[in-house]
Amino acid sequence: MIVVMEKDATDEQIQHMVERVQEMGLKAHVIQGTERTVIAAVGDERATKAEALESGPGVSKVLPILAPYKVASRELKPEPTQVQVGGFAAGAGVVGVIAGPCSVESEEQIMASAEAVKRAGATALRGGAFKPRTSPYSFQGMKEDGLKLLAQAREATGLAVVTEVMSSEEVDLVARYADVLQIGARNMQNYRLLEAVGKCHRAVLLKRGPSATVDEFLLAAEYILNEGNPNVMLCERGIRTFENHTRFTLPLATVTYLHKKTHLPVIIDPSHGTGHAYMVPDMAVAAVAAGADGLIIEVHPDPETAASDGYQSLNFEQFAATMQRCRRVAEAVDRRICAMDACAPA
Amino acid sequence: MIVVMEKDATDEQIQHMVERVQEMGLKAHVIQGTERTVIAAVGDERATKAEALESGPGVSKVLPILAPYKVASRELKPEPTQVQVGGFAAGAGVVGVIAGPCSVESEEQIMASAEAVKRAGATALRGGAFKPRTSPYSFQGMKEDGLKLLAQAREATGLAVVTEVMSSEEVDLVARYADVLQIGARNMQNYRLLEAVGKCHRAVLLKRGPSATVDEFLLAAEYILNEGNPNVMLCERGIRTFENHTRFTLPLATVTYLHKKTHLPVIIDPSHGTGHAYMVPDMAVAAVAAGADGLIIEVHPDPETAASDGYQSLNFEQFAATMQRCRRVAEAVDRRICAMDACAPA
Amino acid sequence: MIVVMEKDATDEQIQHMVERVQEMGLKAHVIQGTERTVIAAVGDERATKAEALESGPGVSKVLPILAPYKVASRELKPEPTQVQVGGFAAGAGVVGVIAGPCSVESEEQIMASAEAVKRAGATALRGGAFKPRTSPYSFQGMKEDGLKLLAQAREATGLAVVTEVMSSEEVDLVARYADVLQIGARNMQNYRLLEAVGKCHRAVLLKRGPSATVDEFLLAAEYILNEGNPNVMLCERGIRTFENHTRFTLPLATVTYLHKKTHLPVIIDPSHGTGHAYMVPDMAVAAVAAGADGLIIEVHPDPETAASDGYQSLNFEQFAATMQRCRRVAEAVDRRICAMDACAPA
Amino acid sequence: MIVVMEKDATDEQIQHMVERVQEMGLKAHVIQGTERTVIAAVGDERATKAEALESGPGVSKVLPILAPYKVASRELKPEPTQVQVGGFAAGAGVVGVIAGPCSVESEEQIMASAEAVKRAGATALRGGAFKPRTSPYSFQGMKEDGLKLLAQAREATGLAVVTEVMSSEEVDLVARYADVLQIGARNMQNYRLLEAVGKCHRAVLLKRGPSATVDEFLLAAEYILNEGNPNVMLCERGIRTFENHTRFTLPLATVTYLHKKTHLPVIIDPSHGTGHAYMVPDMAVAAVAAGADGLIIEVHPDPETAASDGYQSLNFEQFAATMQRCRRVAEAVDRRICAMDACAPA
Repeated sequence: MIVVMEKDATDEQIQHMVERVQEMGLKAHVIQGTERTVIAAVGDERATKAEALESGPGVSKVLPILAPYKVASRELKPEPTQVQVGGFAAGAGVVGVIAGPCSVESEEQIMASAEAVKRAGATALRGGAFKPRTSPYSFQGMKEDGLKLLAQAREATGLAVVTEVMSSEEVDLVARYADVLQIGARNMQNYRLLEAVGKCHRAVLLKRGPSATVDEFLLAAEYILNEGNPNVMLCERGIRTFENHTRFTLPLATVTYLHKKTHLPVIIDPSHGTGHAYMVPDMAVAAVAAGADGLIIEVHPDPETAASDGYQSLNFEQFAATMQRCRRVAEAVDRRICAMDACAPA
Repeated sequence: MIVVMEKDATDEQIQHMVERVQEMGLKAHVIQGTERTVIAAVGDERATKAEALESGPGVSKVLPILAPYKVASRELKPEPTQVQVGGFAAGAGVVGVIAGPCSVESEEQIMASAEAVKRAGATALRGGAFKPRTSPYSFQGMKEDGLKLLAQAREATGLAVVTEVMSSEEVDLVARYADVLQIGARNMQNYRLLEAVGKCHRAVLLKRGPSATVDEFLLAAEYILNEGNPNVMLCERGIRTFENHTRFTLPLATVTYLHKKTHLPVIIDPSHGTGHAYMVPDMAVAAVAAGADGLIIEVHPDPETAASDGYQSLNFEQFAATMQRCRRVAEAVDRRICAMDACAPA
Repeated sequence: MIVVMEKDATDEQIQHMVERVQEMGLKAHVIQGTERTVIAAVGDERATKAEALESGPGVSKVLPILAPYKVASRELKPEPTQVQVGGFAAGAGVVGVIAGPCSVESEEQIMASAEAVKRAGATALRGGAFKPRTSPYSFQGMKEDGLKLLAQAREATGLAVVTEVMSSEEVDLVARYADVLQIGARNMQNYRLLEAVGKCHRAVLLKRGPSATVDEFLLAAEYILNEGNPNVMLCERGIRTFENHTRFTLPLATVTYLHKKTHLPVIIDPSHGTGHAYMVPDMAVAAVAAGADGLIIEVHPDPETAASDGYQSLNFEQFAATMQRCRRVAEAVDRRICAMDACAPA
Repeated sequence: MIVVMEKDATDEQIQHMVERVQEMGLKAHVIQGTERTVIAAVGDERATKAEALESGPGVSKVLPILAPYKVASRELKPEPTQVQVGGFAAGAGVVGVIAGPCSVESEEQIMASAEAVKRAGATALRGGAFKPRTSPYSFQGMKEDGLKLLAQAREATGLAVVTEVMSSEEVDLVARYADVLQIGARNMQNYRLLEAVGKCHRAVLLKRGPSATVDEFLLAAEYILNEGNPNVMLCERGIRTFENHTRFTLPLATVTYLHKKTHLPVIIDPSHGTGHAYMVPDMAVAAVAAGADGLIIEVHPDPETAASDGYQSLNFEQFAATMQRCRRVAEAVDRRICAMDACAPA
């Protein structure tokens, strides 16, 4: 960490800050600049209350040097992590596709969706049973009945089941039916929930909060990893910006950045990332081109009547066409879309 | 809601959408414009899947007309709500001040803080016992021991106790000690938690998520109100923007907007809203001038050594001086800072 | 436009607003909702002072229906515009690549760059002679000497020359040397400059301002088109958001949106759009996959010593490798990178 | 500046970067950390191409230490600058109020406005003659005729005239009539224009661009100061964020930050800063409480029919009431609103 002093900081103030740095177990190097003095503090700043130093006398600002996460870091584990569940895999050159409706609405709807997305080439099925909804007046999901329908769809198709868990109390219940536990964007910093899924043996799909920095995102993953669960996939689903022609802004450079900083696979959600069905195919192929390790796409038999997210759901034909485009682009960037048999473990 | 059709929408498409609107139980008015047709849908759109209509054939966009919340709305309850707990009150012309450390760290620290903030004129004490921290390596709070110290401070000073609850499972525990349950910004859309505090008899301080729109904020309050708890205070604590000279951007116009739209009191948090101690006093007085119903301010005996948020905490002298400035400004805008005896119920 | 009245608006207020709408030459349809009345105003709202209606008595808000731009609109001209200059073309299925250094620094530097980017497959050369710099202490460009070097590079390579013009007074001078006039992001709403290049016979590359909405971007293009210059390329170069791991956030969904709304070609700038050289190749191929009509990429013989933008410039090898990747991806999405001879007019 | 190396940077890479730093005329201090090495570069980094170092081999990131501006800096000139023109003054404890219509529309309108704002206590008159408008179809201003009407209003009332100049070519013309040249938010980085007003003898009101960082804002001021014009007022007029209940987000903490970093006066524009007339009075008093050195407020005889910005303009009564509130709050924070005679030079 670098403690930048004010221009007119006194020697006493500098000395005081040096002592503070040393009390934290760090070594202090004082560098006299032409305009101001800085103190370089050497050592692991993560476990310290380093930021409080900003309140010290004569301090202008404090600049951290080290990344605040460890276990998620590529420096610790250089080789990429592949998350593999049943016939689904993501990471290390394999692009896993998760598709299905926003909400499980009925047996007919989820079974038809599962078969359609499998036919088009997906290897995992998404579908919400517990739905976090902005308004208390919106459809809140079929709850355990929905989970049962998802398990039934897995039985029929072999697709891995990805579904959201909203609260630490529900982790056990959801884990009984699901293959991958999704942490929604609104819960990215629900630490009780992160700890609970960290203690669970299911893989986790962690969505980035719409205003989380990427460091905060990796620290949320670190909560899960620290509890002993290594199977974490990071999902970029768009951030909140001033743009209003999309519901969220999808920053695909997140893929490149995360690949540099972490070994965990990166999944892109072009449905929430744009909020408009017509934009989803272009953003799906762009994500594959950018090197994403997976996609999660909302698909519904009849988007116009969907109980939730209809405006951003593809119908079956649109999804099949998108998968075709993705396969061609994946090949052009020397990656491959995970296919039902090809990705299964030997 | 207004359904705007594409310029080249066919009569069949328009007719189809009219039927969709009618199926939702709404009345459809078709208006032929010079360039495009719009369908005005009359009725309560809140309970419908209105947004899915955007996936309809020939539809350009769907514009909602009604506010999505009801119980929080000023249209439903025109007179302002005053939340009153012990000697603390906020709303309806009274400005309540909550102050204290970010985290409870020790008996000495919390008792000294309680006495200092009381002396300076606060009527409620803040202090975190369960701490949501971005990093798993940061101090996570004293938990129940912290709650006990808060209760002890209340006994000694008469201050109302405001403290955060992070998870639905902990609501009962925290409610045993606290007067006001704080929902942190990261949990604004933790719906299980909102429901749980909605069923509780304690007042609630709901913080705005840093990327939540004000409508989403009011819908979060609606979750609590809908469960039967009317004592909700809304807290603006800054939003995430591109600005980097402050940790968050504090938009004081939120006060004016919320006063127009809702009857609930609006509290401003200048500590998180700026992230720098030296900015807190100016923003505190500005908030009072803008008409805020309360302030929540971080105060610590020695900010430089605080276990959390030291960079944005005032020391005792700074807080006392800020309260003096606030009292003068409150008077200048014909409001009054809630004082220990003056605000207590008759 | 839709004028939404307050819930408690009186009949007089509604009548008053109906008259206001009619005074603007629009037809007014009054629709009585269950909770509030709305007035649909039919006719061309663009030329009116429609927004001022929001100050009318009893008005809650005013929602525009029509896009504010006309000439740029795809509704007016459904077929895509291809901008073609010398061997360079962009639009209508052809992807044009512009590459070169941020600033022209010397004859040696610009000639080497021109040859390298041509060899790698670019058909236009970028290079700044007039440099808008955030700081008055930064290198401000070689001015007319730089323009002469660019023209010399064109002579040697046949590449079209793209360079920025910063002020209406300089349009004639720059147009003497350049093939394409670039309007920088900071000048997107410099209306005098837009009008001046609109009167000029050179093609224009208009960069989106980092906080401009897409509608504002199209209105800026409209200023140019309205003066009679149809050869406008729209360039997305990243927007300002809270993200700090990239210098700007590159929203590739802009491509899809603009293709729906306008006939003008859309160019992506992955250099400014990320601000880090290592991210540029991924974002370049992602842009091609998303359907971009062109790329503009910063390339420098030795980025580490560049007079400006070194941190985001590719060296020659990196650029050549990126072009290879782009060609493969372009083929996978049935588009082609404009090549020196293939794109030249018959 | 601090050059942070990658964890696995080699000794050769570190040595290479040390040499680069030295070639820039800076002294290099190498600090070996437990996880990575950093190089502290001592000296004036402003004139160097420091950022290009990020492209150096083995470099992780480059952190600047010094503020990039000098002349605007409070470190250079600790005492506050007061800008004084006729009866108007702003800075050093005096709050100057500028008010008037967005656009000059007619003699009647501007004369009535001037008299009304003077009566209410303003000492400067705003009014646009050259109007930068987002759409080419909107009213573009009365141009020189408008300037003449402004001068006539000054003659009648003694108010200082503040009006926008949009282009360097128009500086001489506008300076002939105006007392204060306004640089609009869209032109904050129009460097030719900044240089031109820097050479002019008129005071300047420089508006912050809606996505400019505060450092970029101060560097824009630096362009003007560097040309020899010391009379610069900085105007915060709101930034672009995701919020949509206001047109822009008004961050009043800018006042506190700028007062710490610069000696220049800070003016707040609550009209553009909110975009809704009903929010303007609260934000005006909040700005005064926060310590703003001035206000600029849009006032129109009949906002509902204004040629521009009607939705955010106060009528005469609303402005008079706002001034009353401002005077009381100013007194409560020991500042005073500049009054016609009191502020005039002795």
